Amino acid sequence: MTRTAVLGAGSWGTTFAKVLADAGCDVHLFARRPELAKAITEDGENRDYLPGVRLPDAVRATADAAEALLGVDVVVLAVPSQSLRHNLTEWRALLPGDATLLSLMKGIELGTTKRMSEVVCEVTGAGSDRVAALSGPNLAREIAAEQPAATVIACTDADRAAALQAACHTGYFRPYTNPDLIGCELGGAVKNVIALACGIAAGLGFGDNTRASLITRGLAETARLGAALGAEPATFAGLAGLGDLVATCSSPLSRNRTFGEKLGQGLSVEQVQRSTRQTAEGVKSCRSVLDLARAHGVDVPITEAVVRVCHEGESAARMVREIMSREAKPE
Amino acid sequence: MTRTAVLGAGSWGTTFAKVLADAGCDVHLFARRPELAKAITEDGENRDYLPGVRLPDAVRATADAAEALLGVDVVVLAVPSQSLRHNLTEWRALLPGDATLLSLMKGIELGTTKRMSEVVCEVTGAGSDRVAALSGPNLAREIAAEQPAATVIACTDADRAAALQAACHTGYFRPYTNPDLIGCELGGAVKNVIALACGIAAGLGFGDNTRASLITRGLAETARLGAALGAEPATFAGLAGLGDLVATCSSPLSRNRTFGEKLGQGLSVEQVQRSTRQTAEGVKSCRSVLDLARAHGVDVPITEAVVRVCHEGESAARMVREIMSREAKPE
Repeated sequence: MTRTAVLGAGSWGTTFAKVLADAGCDVHLFARRPELAKAITEDGENRDYLPGVRLPDAVRATADAAEALLGVDVVVLAVPSQSLRHNLTEWRALLPGDATLLSLMKGIELGTTKRMSEVVCEVTGAGSDRVAALSGPNLAREIAAEQPAATVIACTDADRAAALQAACHTGYFRPYTNPDLIGCELGGAVKNVIALACGIAAGLGFGDNTRASLITRGLAETARLGAALGAEPATFAGLAGLGDLVATCSSPLSRNRTFGEKLGQGLSVEQVQRSTRQTAEGVKSCRSVLDLARAHGVDVPITEAVVRVCHEGESAARMVREIMSREAKPE
Repeated sequence: MTRTAVLGAGSWGTTFAKVLADAGCDVHLFARRPELAKAITEDGENRDYLPGVRLPDAVRATADAAEALLGVDVVVLAVPSQSLRHNLTEWRALLPGDATLLSLMKGIELGTTKRMSEVVCEVTGAGSDRVAALSGPNLAREIAAEQPAATVIACTDADRAAALQAACHTGYFRPYTNPDLIGCELGGAVKNVIALACGIAAGLGFGDNTRASLITRGLAETARLGAALGAEPATFAGLAGLGDLVATCSSPLSRNRTFGEKLGQGLSVEQVQRSTRQTAEGVKSCRSVLDLARAHGVDVPITEAVVRVCHEGESAARMVREIMSREAKPE
């Protein structure tokens, strides 16, 4: 039996703990707040972040990181992207020497423009072959309801990828493996930014044609950036690229899309932040994605526009018109 | 001023007549039924297929094909795919010798497995450089409401492509050109089939993860078929591939998606056909797409599954489970 620890008890971390348990793993679910860990244990449910979903008995919650990490084979990282470095610094002494480190996070670190796996390697000293990322069209709520979903596990080490695949393969959750860690992580990070743009357009009353155009051009700018970073082009056409992007940009369950929708309706970033309790990763990572693109000389017009709306006070209405009205030319 | 005739006064033909007029063209809109042509002229509106949308004065409706086609520079074909051959046979003697023939149709002919432009060339004797196709994320209702949209005009003759681009470029409708006629037409035809599959999944209660997976794999099977037919891979990543697919698979305005949804809810093809008055192209063309794929030795599992549900009595529930539960493997 694979022994796993999931560090972070938000909706996706909690859902993935359920997937691992349903696939036959032993699962420690770490929650920072002791009262949350206690409530999850007592209720068999995470009422704060995944209300209404019964967790399997094999999921045991704890607020003690040392207890969570003791003797595990796989460490699943599911904290907010911008908190990863700080959290890992605290946990690194507790990580079992050969455990596989699996990132569920989708973001680019502000300031350093590093992908999450790069932060993991840097802070823990692990070789990049020990680090993996999971990404795909995986809205947590639907997976928690055991609707069929597919995902991609990216790891340069094929044996670790296969072991992770086996560890989370259930009747409703189907993992594929892919050696392209860069492409999978980048797809996940940029899609949050594109989802913000789609939300903004929806909030302004634009329909499916506009959204489909934003998705198409958004994937194109992700793939351009990926090419500059050494990713495989095919990754962006797959579940961790197109698949994740389409799910996130379409669903009312997506935080980034919902956040953008409120911006499109005229609220400010501060107003939306006050009214929601969960993080919209794209609001932060749009800046690091833009920094990364600039460092590599890649044109990312949608990301630029999202940065202007989120951080430079540009009006949402102007942004969508601008994106949609670039000069007519060969595609 | 470009003189144009739009043959076919359904919702998309009528909408495109409005776009052409808004871009400054003279437009003859041909409707087969004289009472519809008369009503459009009298009301300035096509109440049967585009109710509530005021048509510009430059759109003049007629039920006389000879009158519609007299002296035009561009002939826009907007009839049901499976009626094209029959209709064109009737009209071919009336077509001006050097007019560009622009197809708005998205289908593959049953029996012959020909694309619409191939049928046009065969019936009219026009060289393939005179034939173009328009395709993109273009839900008619949203364009009629002048929401911003982009599209692709595919023609092997760059001058004709540029002339068409100018003829339909308005503040809300932005055409790009692309020489890849095969890819654009194929993207448009197969997306109707994938939209049926997405509708079926939605009708069964599956959410955005499932839909995003179907879109991702659907685009992959379209691109595989395209590669076998000589299309450019990049076309499928663009507005006429991914863009059109995402818009059609997401929108409640899409006939194919809506048709599939009713199948997913348990109605038979015959029951759905009785309850709707518009054609869902995918129900017919799924068979010709499958024939085309088989003739080229290409695996198209989603199309196959749609054929089984639409024409061979397989249950919709079984189909979705089967597609989502193929064996875990590298992506």
